[in-house]
Amino acid sequence: MNPLSTAPDAGRQRPRVLVRGTGLLGASIGIRLSADGHAVQLSDPSGTAESIARDIGAGQIREAGDPDPEIVVVAAPPEVTAAEAADALVEFPESVVLDVASVKAEVLRQLRELALSPGHDLSPADLTRYVGTHPMAGREQSGPVAARGELFTSMPWVITPAHDPATGEQIPSPSAVAWAEEIARRCGATVHYMDPQEHDASVALISHLPQIAASLIASRLQDAPTSALALAGNGLRDVTRIAASDPNLWVQILAANAAPVVEILHGLRDDVVRLIRTLEDPRAPGRQADIAQLISEGNSGRARVPGKHGAPPQSFARLIVIVDDRPGQIAAVLNDVAKVGVNVEDMRMDHSAGHQVGMVELSVLPGRCEELAEALTELGWKVVQS
Amino acid sequence: MNPLSTAPDAGRQRPRVLVRGTGLLGASIGIRLSADGHAVQLSDPSGTAESIARDIGAGQIREAGDPDPEIVVVAAPPEVTAAEAADALVEFPESVVLDVASVKAEVLRQLRELALSPGHDLSPADLTRYVGTHPMAGREQSGPVAARGELFTSMPWVITPAHDPATGEQIPSPSAVAWAEEIARRCGATVHYMDPQEHDASVALISHLPQIAASLIASRLQDAPTSALALAGNGLRDVTRIAASDPNLWVQILAANAAPVVEILHGLRDDVVRLIRTLEDPRAPGRQADIAQLISEGNSGRARVPGKHGAPPQSFARLIVIVDDRPGQIAAVLNDVAKVGVNVEDMRMDHSAGHQVGMVELSVLPGRCEELAEALTELGWKVVQS
Repeated sequence: MNPLSTAPDAGRQRPRVLVRGTGLLGASIGIRLSADGHAVQLSDPSGTAESIARDIGAGQIREAGDPDPEIVVVAAPPEVTAAEAADALVEFPESVVLDVASVKAEVLRQLRELALSPGHDLSPADLTRYVGTHPMAGREQSGPVAARGELFTSMPWVITPAHDPATGEQIPSPSAVAWAEEIARRCGATVHYMDPQEHDASVALISHLPQIAASLIASRLQDAPTSALALAGNGLRDVTRIAASDPNLWVQILAANAAPVVEILHGLRDDVVRLIRTLEDPRAPGRQADIAQLISEGNSGRARVPGKHGAPPQSFARLIVIVDDRPGQIAAVLNDVAKVGVNVEDMRMDHSAGHQVGMVELSVLPGRCEELAEALTELGWKVVQS
Repeated sequence: MNPLSTAPDAGRQRPRVLVRGTGLLGASIGIRLSADGHAVQLSDPSGTAESIARDIGAGQIREAGDPDPEIVVVAAPPEVTAAEAADALVEFPESVVLDVASVKAEVLRQLRELALSPGHDLSPADLTRYVGTHPMAGREQSGPVAARGELFTSMPWVITPAHDPATGEQIPSPSAVAWAEEIARRCGATVHYMDPQEHDASVALISHLPQIAASLIASRLQDAPTSALALAGNGLRDVTRIAASDPNLWVQILAANAAPVVEILHGLRDDVVRLIRTLEDPRAPGRQADIAQLISEGNSGRARVPGKHGAPPQSFARLIVIVDDRPGQIAAVLNDVAKVGVNVEDMRMDHSAGHQVGMVELSVLPGRCEELAEALTELGWKVVQS
């Protein structure tokens, strides 16, 4: 089967997939596609990573003499992605090759450079078989041990077909793009299309900037007194959660997307400098309005962040149920919620040091909130509506 | 009863409490203390706020001729807290007066100024009846409508007795401090002691800095394309959650704690400037090590943030259960967890736009994780260990 001449919806055998790079993303894709009936081949420069990936059900290690894959998924670290994709395009001249690196313009730039370089076997025509993609799923852990087939479930997966800068025409063939989309869908993801620059600017803002902010704030906690940290609440916990991310991965991501990130950081630096000036004499005329404006603008920006299923965060009503901190209490609450027939859209637990009482915050559709609060109160729960 | 000559543990009638200022904190304290058997009097410059507080069970509106309160809780906005506390100390010459403002040194400075000012009836001796406190509980909503008696449950409540700068002796009487502690405990909070400066430096770092970071990041989303926001994940959601906070309150907090905040912001600005320089030429020698160091330092700082019950965040093992997004599914999972007899220490839901499948991440003691994963799998759940 030649995937380039075959539409993904033609009802026939699942194409053979080679996953090059069996870290968190590669192994997770392998697990999911194997479960979906694809024959998945695995390769990784690390024999250990290859073996772990095989052992957890991501596929079989590719051996010399194995049939060529019809689709190659390059899931290598960002800095070697272009070289790996180029090798795959040359080695498998009929295969669709897609990559899953978190930056897209730089990978494409390197691939074009290789295609135009007399020293490399890659030709510009090969790029009709290459599709850049980015599954927006990650974890604080890395490596195949952290892999799971559900990593991409309900997560965005961006497909970024390149366009010829001169003619504006799409470079990858429509069937190559269709196969990339099919792989994303089979992994359970939600597909988005963007051009590579638009993608990079978007992730600089919604992924790289939050990572930098979390790391900068968390790094200031290194030498904080323990007595101060004991006062930490959910605010600090939420702001710093992603600061636990992998330094090696983020070096590559930030280095490869440096230009859009720097542009945003200039704005952030200006805002910090302005705030310092404001707070150096907070009683001077106009200064308090400046502070209020910063917080208000934060309100507006926050209101634009989509919640579950793309819903704006304010669209759910919240209520709090007080529970003892022992096995079964949360289940008992949610049981009773289910009896009332109300769907829980989101759920948080409130914590603090030294206590054995918990609060469970339930987000539900606003129209159901009052009814639920009444029913739970009647069933003996301590309920507070937000 | 004179609270100054009575220890809180003497088994007798609950003292009368006046709550001055019936916003979120004041009304919540009123609800909790009323439920605990205290006679609670309410007063607020806003008749509406007073009435709402009364209607939700925070106490009775104080009338002319009512007996003097034995304890006064000043729960006014930070900028008027000192004036309100001074008035209460003068009006009720035998009462213990405590405040709950989120900044402590500035309130104390203003109170001392009033006590030394010939134009005010407050005398330095009155300050033996004043205790500064700060319940570390807040919400994105404000006002008495948002109040709830459980607001302080398991939350830190810092008590900051002032000391004479010359002699080093504690200014408030031991029984006044004991009553402040008792009020905090009756509200369900965990008591911490700090001096006012130490408190302000601590909250600048663990509360005010995260608020500023969240607002700065969220404010950059105001003009972001909708297509970019559609890619938002839990990282962005977590980092920006507290950006939904009240601008009026935060103007007062940041203005009153400007000096410690500015000091931290200088460090933040330097870090941002350094990162910009690094990313302007990320391939130059040493630059990638700089980026790695930032993320690593974030790792270290994050590892110091306490989790539930003061446990470090790494001390729980996590597993993920895949559920359909319909009523009763989460309850059914937690039911089965309860059957196995394992306590859920924390819980998160993973969301994204456009899908009807959810992932519930359960944090449990590491020793119980494998057992739980096996048991849930046997019961038919799709389980992935982190």
